[in-house]
Amino acid sequence: MLPDPLTKLVEQLQKLPGIGAKGAQRLAFHILRNPRDDAERLCDAIRDVKERVTYCSACNNITDADPCGFCTSVTRDRRLICVVEEPQNVSVIEKTREFRGVYHVLMGALSPLHGVGPDELKITGLLARVAGGAADEVILATNPTVEGEATALYLARLLKPLGVRVTRIAMGVPVGSDLEYADEVTMTRAMEGRREV
Amino acid sequence: MLPDPLTKLVEQLQKLPGIGAKGAQRLAFHILRNPRDDAERLCDAIRDVKERVTYCSACNNITDADPCGFCTSVTRDRRLICVVEEPQNVSVIEKTREFRGVYHVLMGALSPLHGVGPDELKITGLLARVAGGAADEVILATNPTVEGEATALYLARLLKPLGVRVTRIAMGVPVGSDLEYADEVTMTRAMEGRREV
Repeated sequence: MLPDPLTKLVEQLQKLPGIGAKGAQRLAFHILRNPRDDAERLCDAIRDVKERVTYCSACNNITDADPCGFCTSVTRDRRLICVVEEPQNVSVIEKTREFRGVYHVLMGALSPLHGVGPDELKITGLLARVAGGAADEVILATNPTVEGEATALYLARLLKPLGVRVTRIAMGVPVGSDLEYADEVTMTRAMEGRREV
Repeated sequence: MLPDPLTKLVEQLQKLPGIGAKGAQRLAFHILRNPRDDAERLCDAIRDVKERVTYCSACNNITDADPCGFCTSVTRDRRLICVVEEPQNVSVIEKTREFRGVYHVLMGALSPLHGVGPDELKITGLLARVAGGAADEVILATNPTVEGEATALYLARLLKPLGVRVTRIAMGVPVGSDLEYADEVTMTRAMEGRREV
């Protein structure tokens, strides 16, 4: 029913995460209706990301210069390494403005069901960075999920023998939430992790 | 915090309808992570739409050949014209597989608050198509909103003197819904529009 190029654009847009058939059609019509310059700018931005953004050879974070800004910064503490699953997790931690160490991105979490074992993650690089006493502390900031927890436990077992302090981010009730809506697993963690006032 | 090209892509994606800051970042990371070919195909599809899709000079529907397939079809009844607000409304009506007439796309609805008056809509073309007895019936299928209703009333006043039958699509409770969730305006229309069984 739609002209052929529009159908093809809808198809391509539907491949993006969180965009269904209706959403893709809405986007396609938006692109059709708006000035050609807007479409060009979008295409240029997509192409630029594919051409210029790579992964840091030290920490695997995304960057347009290798090594990345975190790894080359003179103001950041290289003896404090925060381990996260995905590059997008870095910005969540940066937004706290509290962390002054460096990062290590695993590019995923252990998930045997999805065929992700230790070899699929950037673990060797992490061990190499820690080996030889190059770090004081490794903060495991993998997701508070089954996979993230398993990954943290696995890494802790590998890292501790290297003589580094290994910590895990706290799990508990989110700030600003209502206890009424806390699930029992989270509440259990909040009770377990209680601290003296 | 993100590499410059990625920030720019997030900015561009945020301009799309229904895509917020979080969604745009998610899409950008998806594009970054996935093969370059996928990104190329998306860009090609966007460019193709801007280059090849135009509006039919007769009915204003989107098309990659002018006049469009509906207007040139020999099996469709050119004496029955269905008026819709936007090109995307055509496919909703086509999906019914009931309508065998042709279309006229207004490219909007009257909305004085948004500066859309009769001159901003494709009304002159519609009147020209109807004038001279070229049509038996005009179905007003503008949206069941204040703007759509106002547009339908306005068109009806212009069309009726041309000696054509002017009809408006029925408003009432949607099929498969529960009366419990029907708002009072819809329910009023459903009662008013009741038909003998």
